[in-house]
Amino acid sequence: MQVIKTKDDIKNIITAYKKENKTIGFVPTMGALHEGHLKLITEARKENDIVVLSIFVNPLQFGPNEDFEAYPRSLERDTELAELTGADIVFAPSAKEMYEGPPSYTVKVTERVNVLCGKSREGHFDGVATVLTKLFNLIRPDRAYFGMKDAQQVAVIDGLVKEFFFPVHLVPVETIREEDGLAKSSRNVYLTEEERKQAPILFKSLSNAKELIENGERNRDVIVEKIKHMIQMQTNGIIDYVEVLTYPDLKEIKELSGNIIIALAVKFTKARLIDNITIEITS
Amino acid sequence: MQVIKTKDDIKNIITAYKKENKTIGFVPTMGALHEGHLKLITEARKENDIVVLSIFVNPLQFGPNEDFEAYPRSLERDTELAELTGADIVFAPSAKEMYEGPPSYTVKVTERVNVLCGKSREGHFDGVATVLTKLFNLIRPDRAYFGMKDAQQVAVIDGLVKEFFFPVHLVPVETIREEDGLAKSSRNVYLTEEERKQAPILFKSLSNAKELIENGERNRDVIVEKIKHMIQMQTNGIIDYVEVLTYPDLKEIKELSGNIIIALAVKFTKARLIDNITIEITS
Repeated sequence: MQVIKTKDDIKNIITAYKKENKTIGFVPTMGALHEGHLKLITEARKENDIVVLSIFVNPLQFGPNEDFEAYPRSLERDTELAELTGADIVFAPSAKEMYEGPPSYTVKVTERVNVLCGKSREGHFDGVATVLTKLFNLIRPDRAYFGMKDAQQVAVIDGLVKEFFFPVHLVPVETIREEDGLAKSSRNVYLTEEERKQAPILFKSLSNAKELIENGERNRDVIVEKIKHMIQMQTNGIIDYVEVLTYPDLKEIKELSGNIIIALAVKFTKARLIDNITIEITS
Repeated sequence: MQVIKTKDDIKNIITAYKKENKTIGFVPTMGALHEGHLKLITEARKENDIVVLSIFVNPLQFGPNEDFEAYPRSLERDTELAELTGADIVFAPSAKEMYEGPPSYTVKVTERVNVLCGKSREGHFDGVATVLTKLFNLIRPDRAYFGMKDAQQVAVIDGLVKEFFFPVHLVPVETIREEDGLAKSSRNVYLTEEERKQAPILFKSLSNAKELIENGERNRDVIVEKIKHMIQMQTNGIIDYVEVLTYPDLKEIKELSGNIIIALAVKFTKARLIDNITIEITS
């Protein structure tokens, strides 16, 4: 496996692969790899000749009150995990390599962003869309892999690819869960012992909502109330939001139909957990 | 020569050429082809296996007071000229094909735009950068050709390609001129007989400035005053601007050095003419 640090080097490598008509699978990350990322690499490995993992903590997607400096960096460990999981290339550029100075060209996103977690993170998805535009142009992947744990990010990138006609196929990968249903996250270690026992209720409340919908419930408010009630009664977490939206457009919906997402965020003492499920309502 | 109207068709054609490792030269236009465009095609023809000309009047780069509807459209004539000049493909999509609805993703440009013609055309270059991002992703050219007549556009696209890492080589092509030096433009026909006789003074004033610089003049104000004086004395045109800036950064400069552009816009009765020269000051 190669570890590449510069734009020029990755460009040359990609150009050579392109000339040989190799397919390229791309897994963009900010490092601090966990099982979710490894699943993305595994999926990319199955479907492409070459698997490129990028590790770049993108300053542009951090808000002024979000801690860019404190974001965990562990390149050596990440590189080892990437190699073990079957990546061919780790692209780990410096901030200077990706942004020569303050950006003069950015992607501005106006749909799918002012809901869910995006509501409290103004400009976050502009930063995501901008860095992905740059990474897509460098890596020129045939397929790009993103975890459905951050479903809003997947929706925003889906729109980016479609509106800007990027010649890349977006592959959403299902959230990995613990045996008890809790979505895997590097933040789970910040839960107290008691909170860890309660946390699976989040996914249970979503699964319960899914069952209600399968049994015919179509009222958005009923679904939201059932989920809120369950979390309030069975955990000490503080609900940030519980929302039902169309997917991937992320529009409000009252009477459920078509593709929808049920998404939630719950604050525990030292960890804010998010989870979601998407459901296709066919009748 | 093929005339292609849809994204899907152009994608398939480009993908096939890419598999054969053909190089692609791209000439983006809004149609109403004149000799300037044909020169771009000719240059592209020399350096690439395949030459793609796009004809698309991009609504996003027209301001509310600029006449998008009245912009000349002449697809049949343009197609004929493109074929005669050696293009392989004309890509002429509808507005609906390029924008399914109001765009939710746009490129925002903050440098190189608020000077020269961009000063009075807010958002114009956002529209240019957005449509070129889309076209670059569809056509995936090795080289893209732009006329230096609109030097600010070339500068903005140069920045777009560099900041967004587009895998395309930007080729600026020199302005074509009449025998008497007047830059060729479809607007020249709107000049009165007398104005047409005066119009070459624009390029003469730029050439005169270049000579002054070659002879050692380094004061920006002196250069601007000489040009203004010459145009005011020898034409009936009203000067919109005469500016000396760094190139391609388009920053103000007092003491001339490095790469610079001298650009001007002059209003005649029914035509506003622009022209420019770039100069490399080596000592």
